[in-house]
Amino acid sequence: MARINSNYRKLQAGYLFPEIGRRVRAFASENPSAKIIRLGIGDVVLPLPSPIVSALKAATDEMGSKESFKGYGPEQGYDFLREAIAKHYQEQGAAVDADEVFVSDGSKCDTANIQEIFAADSTIAVTDPVYPVYVDTNVMAGRTGTADAKGRYAGLVYLPTTAENGFDPPLPQEPVELVYLCSPNNPTGAVMSRASLEKWVAWARKNETVILFDAAYEAFIREPGWPRSIFEIPGAREVAIEFRSFSKTAGFTGTRCAYTVVPKELMAYDDKGGKVSLHSLWSRRQTTKFNGVSYPIQKAAEAVFSPAGRKAVADNVDYTMENARIIREGLRDAGFKLFGGVNAPYIWMKTPGGLGSWEFFDKLLSQAHVVGTPGAGFGSCGEGYFRLSAFGLRENMLEAVSRIIKVH
Amino acid sequence: MARINSNYRKLQAGYLFPEIGRRVRAFASENPSAKIIRLGIGDVVLPLPSPIVSALKAATDEMGSKESFKGYGPEQGYDFLREAIAKHYQEQGAAVDADEVFVSDGSKCDTANIQEIFAADSTIAVTDPVYPVYVDTNVMAGRTGTADAKGRYAGLVYLPTTAENGFDPPLPQEPVELVYLCSPNNPTGAVMSRASLEKWVAWARKNETVILFDAAYEAFIREPGWPRSIFEIPGAREVAIEFRSFSKTAGFTGTRCAYTVVPKELMAYDDKGGKVSLHSLWSRRQTTKFNGVSYPIQKAAEAVFSPAGRKAVADNVDYTMENARIIREGLRDAGFKLFGGVNAPYIWMKTPGGLGSWEFFDKLLSQAHVVGTPGAGFGSCGEGYFRLSAFGLRENMLEAVSRIIKVH
Repeated sequence: MARINSNYRKLQAGYLFPEIGRRVRAFASENPSAKIIRLGIGDVVLPLPSPIVSALKAATDEMGSKESFKGYGPEQGYDFLREAIAKHYQEQGAAVDADEVFVSDGSKCDTANIQEIFAADSTIAVTDPVYPVYVDTNVMAGRTGTADAKGRYAGLVYLPTTAENGFDPPLPQEPVELVYLCSPNNPTGAVMSRASLEKWVAWARKNETVILFDAAYEAFIREPGWPRSIFEIPGAREVAIEFRSFSKTAGFTGTRCAYTVVPKELMAYDDKGGKVSLHSLWSRRQTTKFNGVSYPIQKAAEAVFSPAGRKAVADNVDYTMENARIIREGLRDAGFKLFGGVNAPYIWMKTPGGLGSWEFFDKLLSQAHVVGTPGAGFGSCGEGYFRLSAFGLRENMLEAVSRIIKVH
Repeated sequence: MARINSNYRKLQAGYLFPEIGRRVRAFASENPSAKIIRLGIGDVVLPLPSPIVSALKAATDEMGSKESFKGYGPEQGYDFLREAIAKHYQEQGAAVDADEVFVSDGSKCDTANIQEIFAADSTIAVTDPVYPVYVDTNVMAGRTGTADAKGRYAGLVYLPTTAENGFDPPLPQEPVELVYLCSPNNPTGAVMSRASLEKWVAWARKNETVILFDAAYEAFIREPGWPRSIFEIPGAREVAIEFRSFSKTAGFTGTRCAYTVVPKELMAYDDKGGKVSLHSLWSRRQTTKFNGVSYPIQKAAEAVFSPAGRKAVADNVDYTMENARIIREGLRDAGFKLFGGVNAPYIWMKTPGGLGSWEFFDKLLSQAHVVGTPGAGFGSCGEGYFRLSAFGLRENMLEAVSRIIKVH
């Protein structure tokens, strides 16, 4: 009699974005004439830049010719892309070797899968609010108990990041084995300073904690002085794994390519107390459970680092950050209280009038036909907040702001 | 103090194909002038057919235009591809609905990940020999003890499939919760008959076992009367999940697209004894840990089902099966004992002179400069066998046969 993984029964409702999709579809079907503007899921809208399109098409032609056809590639990614990524890190002041780069089809997958290489009873800290994938995948793996009324799972250590502490994640009060950090942050839009990261790295070294550092939004840092990679911090190579993505930067949410860096110095203990390389473990995981990213897509990703690709991507980031400015200033001038949106594509706003975040979601959808993301979907400390994404077309941003400020 | 998933320590040596790659690289670097022919890993060599190349490029152009750009798609795949797949099933006489199809980036990933939705202490049967991914992923998930001297893991039920039983997997002697079957089989090249599958489905229904059915090679069935899908068998929808791939059929090993069918009737028990839909569980797994396949790649996969795509793919399959005939007949005439290669792209041969399969691997590599796959790499019952893949260029097949028959 086959039995399921009953940890799935502990998961609450649907994963956040499918639930939003469900509510939006229901509204749209009842209000077919409503012109809905979507600032919910952080999805890109600008087309792939032409140097990337050209590279993808050229690689497709290679696949169509007997002489240049490619079958299975290395599970970890082709050297041409791993080397381009390592060079990009070096230019940013972080020492990363090409063979420490694992190319994948998405940071969601990597941040979801990384927990598999750690002990089934590992202790884990997450920020609150938090990207739900970090939590849900650990629930599914059985590292938590059930959720309480506020949606917090027994056994996880939650680190509140709120306006009160400037959205800077506080150190856990107790040692933990793994901690997920995300900077620039999804959903709060806050960036961790060099001093904050230095504090975290020192703490992790002392406690032999592994930091799972999600830097998917590093390209949106506009102000100088903020670290773009945890590997800019001395000593981080012994305590951190970093996740990055082409999704938001280069418009790859539908094209799919990302990468994870596992430094060779990074170790954890086995059940005999011996030290084991996490690089070798992740390599074993990826070679056994993954088969590499499509060759044409890897060639498209490589083109992101060409001079023309960099220019095009920088222009797209500029466009998105101008959107962020429009939302931020437009809503601020109308009296909304907002955070983020300066070095991140997300604006984190206090819901007006003390509304619950799902209440405000429904209100905004029904009155303004604007979709955002309820802060409560990211954790109990997200209650009373609301996330707006700056990805979108300029005209929609302007229109959304004018509609939102009329909601009452 | 972070701790690893110590189950990884139970895994033996490297995953099979990286180990082969290591030995081949070592040989090649010592013998730079040797012209090595690779019949080891079952990798395709024929270029992507032109209807598929055209579809991929057209979809890339869509991604380069603001009007037709696609961001995140549904994690389960686009409807256009799910519907084309369901239609293909219906043409084959198997009732599958489009919303039971989950598009993915590879059958290796799907067969590796599927175990996550089952109980951590599920009992599992596998054939011996077996595709290593089924075993290794369950070892990594902690469902086994350590391996014995023959490489068999404690806690797994092994079903010997050898020449003695015509490579037809025998039913387990005891009930199990999950069983992995593969037909046409990798590595033996045997196909399960309708009668055999009916026997398995009846047994699974009686024992409430879930059959994880790997049909990645169904397109290579050339003779009429063999089932291509387990869903051709009445009652299978309540007991089976099926995996299929574009990898070998349409030459997608480097392009990456596959699919998994989870029927809506398929249930398993939770820890309270309630029945839970595995379709809903796999949907939750995929929406939480996966982000869908690249849109241009899905359009390329859709083109496999167009009239021109079908014709091109059938031609490629014909080409590969003519290779298989050349290997089979060439080596048979030279006195080798061979199986498979009629309805599958793999030839499973007895190692000559009672050699161990890794011994024969090394001998073939050093004397004939031909790479095959040692049967022992697939399990203890694979010892004394050797797998040759029919994927390759015609001239290499002819040359490989002439070299192999000279080895002594």
